[in-house]
Amino acid sequence: MLKKVVICGVGLIGGSFALALRETGAVGEVVGIGRSRANLDLARQRGIIDRIGACDAATLADADLVLLATPVGQMPELMRAMAPHLGVHTVLTDAGSTKSDVAAAVRACLPAQAARFVPAHPIAGTENSGAGAAQADLYRGAKVILTPLPENAPDAVARVRAAWAACGAVIHDMSPARHDQIFAAVSHLPHVLSFALVHELAQREDCDEFLRFAASGFRDFTRIAASDPEMWRDICLANRDALLAELECYQSQLGDLHQALVAGDAARLEAIFADARSLRRAWTEGKLS
Amino acid sequence: MLKKVVICGVGLIGGSFALALRETGAVGEVVGIGRSRANLDLARQRGIIDRIGACDAATLADADLVLLATPVGQMPELMRAMAPHLGVHTVLTDAGSTKSDVAAAVRACLPAQAARFVPAHPIAGTENSGAGAAQADLYRGAKVILTPLPENAPDAVARVRAAWAACGAVIHDMSPARHDQIFAAVSHLPHVLSFALVHELAQREDCDEFLRFAASGFRDFTRIAASDPEMWRDICLANRDALLAELECYQSQLGDLHQALVAGDAARLEAIFADARSLRRAWTEGKLS
Repeated sequence: MLKKVVICGVGLIGGSFALALRETGAVGEVVGIGRSRANLDLARQRGIIDRIGACDAATLADADLVLLATPVGQMPELMRAMAPHLGVHTVLTDAGSTKSDVAAAVRACLPAQAARFVPAHPIAGTENSGAGAAQADLYRGAKVILTPLPENAPDAVARVRAAWAACGAVIHDMSPARHDQIFAAVSHLPHVLSFALVHELAQREDCDEFLRFAASGFRDFTRIAASDPEMWRDICLANRDALLAELECYQSQLGDLHQALVAGDAARLEAIFADARSLRRAWTEGKLS
Repeated sequence: MLKKVVICGVGLIGGSFALALRETGAVGEVVGIGRSRANLDLARQRGIIDRIGACDAATLADADLVLLATPVGQMPELMRAMAPHLGVHTVLTDAGSTKSDVAAAVRACLPAQAARFVPAHPIAGTENSGAGAAQADLYRGAKVILTPLPENAPDAVARVRAAWAACGAVIHDMSPARHDQIFAAVSHLPHVLSFALVHELAQREDCDEFLRFAASGFRDFTRIAASDPEMWRDICLANRDALLAELECYQSQLGDLHQALVAGDAARLEAIFADARSLRRAWTEGKLS
């Protein structure tokens, strides 16, 4: 039981965390902090938070758990603002979609509390945002990745793990670097590739005629190119090194395909496509370990 | 009214064409030709065709319309086999997904009938194939692209156009080269890019761990990587020149993105993503001309 939880950024992610904890009776009081007063008022009206707090000792000193659910780019400043007001007992975590940069920010901006900050990444979301989009069941059955730091205290890790378990999440542990490598490959790179395809078409004077004949394959391939540009700019920069490594692997793969096409190498093309189909089908059918 | 239509390859595409013509009373007799006797029997049982024919004068000489609905790779051989048996009145068309190669095959394999062969490409399909998948409404509201050849007789073009119109299709005309350029960009390239991403992951010993954390963005981006390898090998080779041109544009675009990432150029990344989102949204919302 967490007596007091503070949510910084009471949007879809932070608000759903609060609702889930409330629903299972895992929390006493929930206090919200945020930049938008209107959003915090809505969160209070919806019963997501009990009251609106501030980045001060009254809000933070006796908190059992503080969740940073803001964009990752705002976290260093937020950490610095919180640092003087945190109690020794307080455990912190975040919900950012990149982890090496959060780990670095913790060490730079909250060095005294690094033992009690356990970075995490819930793999969940919807098209919507803000407190109005929060839902108690968002994390039920969803994956949450914990990336504990070597300096984390075991009781801090246990507290964050228990909170996500109470939300119904399935928890996986890995290092921040491994997290960032995996998400660069299966999420960040596909977004960049999809943006690149549509941007390339957008440069053409006759792009309307191209898009007139685009069908369901194009639709699905480019769905993620309608994602938020600012958010994806930040993710790409926050995870730049891992993303560059994945992009370079992919460019090399395209180079191979280009060569096979130039050579008219039917067997090589078919082998590449067949390997891809086989793995894609195994994934869809849940046949991977 | 077409008295006799011959369908070569009575699968999803050819079978649906026959069913659509029958439904509107636009055809008298439908004869099927194909390599699989079991599929032709099923087509007859389902009432798609009236009888099974062969590549001979009895089947072809008095046909009003012959549709080649086989894979494009089989068409040259089929055209050569048909050539001696075609009547002067017969009009031919195809349903292949590339058009410059079909036009070239017509000139090489059916030179005497080039005035009466009108290449076409119906933009429709489902996950399924074979006569069992054929449906009368597959083409209702679907786009069909006619790529008439300069040597085509006007009455031949009119007959093919009328047949597709009877199926409920919306018909667009363009040259084979323009067709192939557009489909290289909005269909063939996205397939190659999706295959490439999954194939690159498939090379990794730990690919299962990557895919364990893949979510909806990956799912949609890679849906087309589960497509038929043989079919896509053939499309890539049939449309090699246009596809190579599109692939090279895309590689250059990725080079720009790579550079922006290396430079940490936030404004450039955001501009690329924002342009892409804007066009993608306009397309989804039907706001393009």
